[in-house]
Amino acid sequence: MLFHVRMDVKLPPDMPPERADALKKEEKALAQRLQEQGQWRHLWRIAGQYANVSIFDVAGNEELHALLLSLPLYPYMQIEVMPLCRHPSSVRANDL
Amino acid sequence: MLFHVRMDVKLPPDMPPERADALKKEEKALAQRLQEQGQWRHLWRIAGQYANVSIFDVAGNEELHALLLSLPLYPYMQIEVMPLCRHPSSVRANDL
Amino acid sequence: MLFHVRMDVKLPPDMPPERADALKKEEKALAQRLQEQGQWRHLWRIAGQYANVSIFDVAGNEELHALLLSLPLYPYMQIEVMPLCRHPSSVRANDL
Amino acid sequence: MLFHVRMDVKLPPDMPPERADALKKEEKALAQRLQEQGQWRHLWRIAGQYANVSIFDVAGNEELHALLLSLPLYPYMQIEVMPLCRHPSSVRANDL
Amino acid sequence: MLFHVRMDVKLPPDMPPERADALKKEEKALAQRLQEQGQWRHLWRIAGQYANVSIFDVAGNEELHALLLSLPLYPYMQIEVMPLCRHPSSVRANDL
Amino acid sequence: MLFHVRMDVKLPPDMPPERADALKKEEKALAQRLQEQGQWRHLWRIAGQYANVSIFDVAGNEELHALLLSLPLYPYMQIEVMPLCRHPSSVRANDL
Amino acid sequence: MLFHVRMDVKLPPDMPPERADALKKEEKALAQRLQEQGQWRHLWRIAGQYANVSIFDVAGNEELHALLLSLPLYPYMQIEVMPLCRHPSSVRANDL
Amino acid sequence: MLFHVRMDVKLPPDMPPERADALKKEEKALAQRLQEQGQWRHLWRIAGQYANVSIFDVAGNEELHALLLSLPLYPYMQIEVMPLCRHPSSVRANDL
Amino acid sequence: MLFHVRMDVKLPPDMPPERADALKKEEKALAQRLQEQGQWRHLWRIAGQYANVSIFDVAGNEELHALLLSLPLYPYMQIEVMPLCRHPSSVRANDL
Amino acid sequence: MLFHVRMDVKLPPDMPPERADALKKEEKALAQRLQEQGQWRHLWRIAGQYANVSIFDVAGNEELHALLLSLPLYPYMQIEVMPLCRHPSSVRANDL
Repeated sequence: MLFHVRMDVKLPPDMPPERADALKKEEKALAQRLQEQGQWRHLWRIAGQYANVSIFDVAGNEELHALLLSLPLYPYMQIEVMPLCRHPSSVRANDL
Repeated sequence: MLFHVRMDVKLPPDMPPERADALKKEEKALAQRLQEQGQWRHLWRIAGQYANVSIFDVAGNEELHALLLSLPLYPYMQIEVMPLCRHPSSVRANDL
Repeated sequence: MLFHVRMDVKLPPDMPPERADALKKEEKALAQRLQEQGQWRHLWRIAGQYANVSIFDVAGNEELHALLLSLPLYPYMQIEVMPLCRHPSSVRANDL
Repeated sequence: MLFHVRMDVKLPPDMPPERADALKKEEKALAQRLQEQGQWRHLWRIAGQYANVSIFDVAGNEELHALLLSLPLYPYMQIEVMPLCRHPSSVRANDL
Repeated sequence: MLFHVRMDVKLPPDMPPERADALKKEEKALAQRLQEQGQWRHLWRIAGQYANVSIFDVAGNEELHALLLSLPLYPYMQIEVMPLCRHPSSVRANDL
Repeated sequence: MLFHVRMDVKLPPDMPPERADALKKEEKALAQRLQEQGQWRHLWRIAGQYANVSIFDVAGNEELHALLLSLPLYPYMQIEVMPLCRHPSSVRANDL
Repeated sequence: MLFHVRMDVKLPPDMPPERADALKKEEKALAQRLQEQGQWRHLWRIAGQYANVSIFDVAGNEELHALLLSLPLYPYMQIEVMPLCRHPSSVRANDL
Repeated sequence: MLFHVRMDVKLPPDMPPERADALKKEEKALAQRLQEQGQWRHLWRIAGQYANVSIFDVAGNEELHALLLSLPLYPYMQIEVMPLCRHPSSVRANDL
Repeated sequence: MLFHVRMDVKLPPDMPPERADALKKEEKALAQRLQEQGQWRHLWRIAGQYANVSIFDVAGNEELHALLLSLPLYPYMQIEVMPLCRHPSSVRANDL
Repeated sequence: MLFHVRMDVKLPPDMPPERADALKKEEKALAQRLQEQGQWRHLWRIAGQYANVSIFDVAGNEELHALLLSLPLYPYMQIEVMPLCRHPSSVRANDL
């Protein structure tokens, strides 16, 4: 089941750079593991923003929430979720 | 070059059903041709909305605008465009 | 899987009353059938609004979209969808 | 009498973790007691958000306000209240 | 139980003046009857707007909704409802 | 002359509790004095919010501003003002 | 007593030009009479908008509402009102 | 050339009172000098707000920006600018 | 003096195509004449929108308003105006 | 390929002035280098705002993002990006 997720990251201006770097490194490692496992199907940067657009492929709402909650940057993100469906005009076998 | 596009369709309530059906049929045919040609890379329905989220892969802003303008439902759509970039944490070879 | 759905109904001011009445009657019949089948778990009126708050229990995004699309008043509704999860503090066995 | 309440929690980034944990534990205990007593009828997590959607069943506005005010996380929540009514199409004996 | 209600009236520009006058006259008659019965406790015009701020005193959400629904101008109004409580600093015996 | 005023209070999270208590106590004393003098005609709590809806009866804009400015919590409030008029359908002798 | 009023005019696209011209002519005549009488103290066009910013000098809310209501274009205007006070830094004898 | 400017002032809650007082004193002195020179044509307080509405009379955009930038409270203000024109219905010789 | 103007065009859905074409042709002719005369310095289409971003170079607010008002599509446009200044970091001799 | 970018700068109120000055100086140097190289085609200050409107001429989304990310003030800016196209009515050879 696919979900469209937009994440905007806002680190507190007084977070020590080492702390920020450590968080980003952990975030990247987890994001890549979740991509390899197939749950995080797409991940794009929005030009000019510290924000991404992602497509998640999960069993349902519970799994989606658990994945998002597990992200190291979760406490510093504003997140918007939209459930997706197959589009009747789609020709992509995978996009469901 | 990738662009994230959201299209919300709003047909006038007094449009004759045959006209609406004809427009939707033409829209579907073009959407499928553009997907097969690779310019319309992804197309999803947003659950509960007469709206879609799409990813376009085009040479640039001009081509994107020309494609959107050519859609039969264009006069009845509200469109939002966001330019996308490869995300530094992406592992998908294609998502650029 | 649960979804929170808010529906605001806006009938065109020039719709003939018989047409409006027929649509509302069909809507009611379907809403009751879906409640009895268990997919439309809760349905409340928002005080002072021609709008409702509903909880749907469906297999996923596709089923939710299909149900909403099948509502006779769908073309006249503005719909907002939020995927829900079990709350860690909930004591209700059913609320998942 | 039913009320729809959405609560978004925002803890100050510099709150000590022990303080946050203590508050959440007290919140959970009270939320469960209020559910068992019947005043907090439903409680769901919104996927991807540190937020919940709740249905309260109280004698009126005063009791609702007193309950919300008594929540340990109240000072850190943004709250939206909507009074609910029985929906004319509802078939649920309880949903009033 | 008190509720704060704001009503903004928007008559369709093509409504025949006699129809508008008849509706307003019926609205006024009902508004005055509800005031005399005590359910519509206060009614003020907002300067420069075709809108009012009202305080209703009713047994609960159901009665409030039924009253609003019974207003002749209801189909042409946008309505916002806020449940009110006695304020701890109030000295007015009636304002509860 | 009547004015509708909504005040939302937001104390800084790091204000010492004694300071907050002292401010609230002074606020209450002044609010009650102004009610007794008749300038603060109504004062209600909005359910679920640290906010009130008030009706002021003053000689004009200057007096209203001076009263609001004199409130001990003024620096921590977001305030919205709407000038009110007698409603042509009102039957309350006082509501002007 | 001064009030800041912004008026945005929106004539229905299908209003016959003669009707629009007649309304505008009556509006202009009244606006000029009210300026000469002193109640409409300032009147400016906002560049690029069919909108004005005005300063009214009236005895109070009732007079302001009555004046606005008497404008021939009133049914086609969206109006925002802000009560003004003398600014403590003002040196203009008149601006109160 | 006239410009409509709204300034909302928001001093940081932890600014020392002497610093705030000094800034306000300097602001007042400059505001009065600019009024006497004619560039700051009108200055009103918005009732209930730490905000003003002003009319500036300057040679153009550059002078307006330079004046606003020179205000001691500029770093703590949110500013909105609207270019004004003479209104075709105005009878005030000065209001251009 | 430079102004940044965004124009969003919205033709009524029932405007006859010949009328729309005639208006667009007149609009284009005037836009090109104003560009050649130098008052309309830049004109770009926003990708995916029936909207443009323009830079005008005029003597002041009055000339700007007169130009916009003279556009054949003016009655069907929503317009936003922002006065521009030379940026202290600009190296373009013309951009003032 | 052209992009319209609006940047609003918001420095934390407690940033030491030397730090702010150093950042602004570096920002200016880079902005001028990018203008001279042709990627930052236009740069204007918005009157009354610590904000600019810019036109970038880059190979695509990736280059735009990289340029914005390299700005010393990037962490303190809110940025909005709109892809631009040649307007069919433009007569400027360069504006594409």
